[in-house]
Amino acid sequence: MIRVLLVHDSCLMRSALAERLARETDLEVFHVPWRSAGVRARSLRPNVCVADLHCAEPYGLAPLGELTGRTAGAGACPLLVLSTADRPGLLRRAAEAGALGYVDEASPPEQLLTAIRQVAAGRRFVDDSLGFGFLRASQMPLTQRELSVLSLAAGGASIAEIARSLHLSNGTVRNYMAAITRKTGARNRVDAIRISRGEGWV
Amino acid sequence: MIRVLLVHDSCLMRSALAERLARETDLEVFHVPWRSAGVRARSLRPNVCVADLHCAEPYGLAPLGELTGRTAGAGACPLLVLSTADRPGLLRRAAEAGALGYVDEASPPEQLLTAIRQVAAGRRFVDDSLGFGFLRASQMPLTQRELSVLSLAAGGASIAEIARSLHLSNGTVRNYMAAITRKTGARNRVDAIRISRGEGWV
Repeated sequence: MIRVLLVHDSCLMRSALAERLARETDLEVFHVPWRSAGVRARSLRPNVCVADLHCAEPYGLAPLGELTGRTAGAGACPLLVLSTADRPGLLRRAAEAGALGYVDEASPPEQLLTAIRQVAAGRRFVDDSLGFGFLRASQMPLTQRELSVLSLAAGGASIAEIARSLHLSNGTVRNYMAAITRKTGARNRVDAIRISRGEGWV
Repeated sequence: MIRVLLVHDSCLMRSALAERLARETDLEVFHVPWRSAGVRARSLRPNVCVADLHCAEPYGLAPLGELTGRTAGAGACPLLVLSTADRPGLLRRAAEAGALGYVDEASPPEQLLTAIRQVAAGRRFVDDSLGFGFLRASQMPLTQRELSVLSLAAGGASIAEIARSLHLSNGTVRNYMAAITRKTGARNRVDAIRISRGEGWV
């Protein structure tokens, strides 16, 4: 039996998908919202954890590392993520957290079943249609420092607040913001935040 | 028989939920992504259209009016929306478009079945747990003009661009942005956009 933990914030959606998966005789399916995913994964020790990336975004995707065991003190669990090709930043962060499977939300449930069995056997699975998303993920134009500046700005911090929290001068933060605006092809700072959030970079 | 059209952008999720609904003997279920919802609703003429509000957001929720028939030339269809209490702006826009049913994404599928049958019979259905969301929706602090300014700003337009497109002076747009920042309790313009998007106002 393959023990599957399904993580999604909509109870309506995850219970319907869990029911569909549980009709397969080799799967035993449990489901939770993101906020209890880490705790449940540690107690249940599933063979595969299937997690929706879009729902995880408000939490900053930190829980991903908790599931795969990259975060200290967390139990390792083979992770399969559900995402779309138009959010390369989410794919990138899942890859950094060590996810083994990547299924396109646009795929039919049968594709997810194939992926679950493959990941449970310890093998990587990547949906063909996510290829372009991974290509764009590899071309992410911003440096780690620019990402830090951008995510503080996206959270509503002023130039002075960003400068203080990263121990930089106001002028340096302004230079970073100008570089970010140029590299993302944005018209201004607000536009740079909009574009970067849309792609899932921050 | 109740003909149901299920609208959601994730094929994985909507086909699982459609399968669950189709197990009921009085329901006939079809499913589509948002981009084809209007066309499909006109040809299918469903008794109830069940639509996920969160997925509709990138399209500006314009398709909602197309489904309910508030938009000229569109076929009317009783609309039931899936949403959450923490996005009052989305609930408000669904109410403005004339949606008849409101189900919390956190509810179990049985609740959705009750709602579908009620809306198909022409009766309103509102999930208890969405009450607080509706309360906050009724307390939306921004005027229509402020919302127009804010949604252009959120799209990345500069003060000068907003002024040009709304036939206002730069100073007036700055005054609107200051009022928006104050009313949303934000620290600055970027923060005001972040807060308003989070609540679903723009």
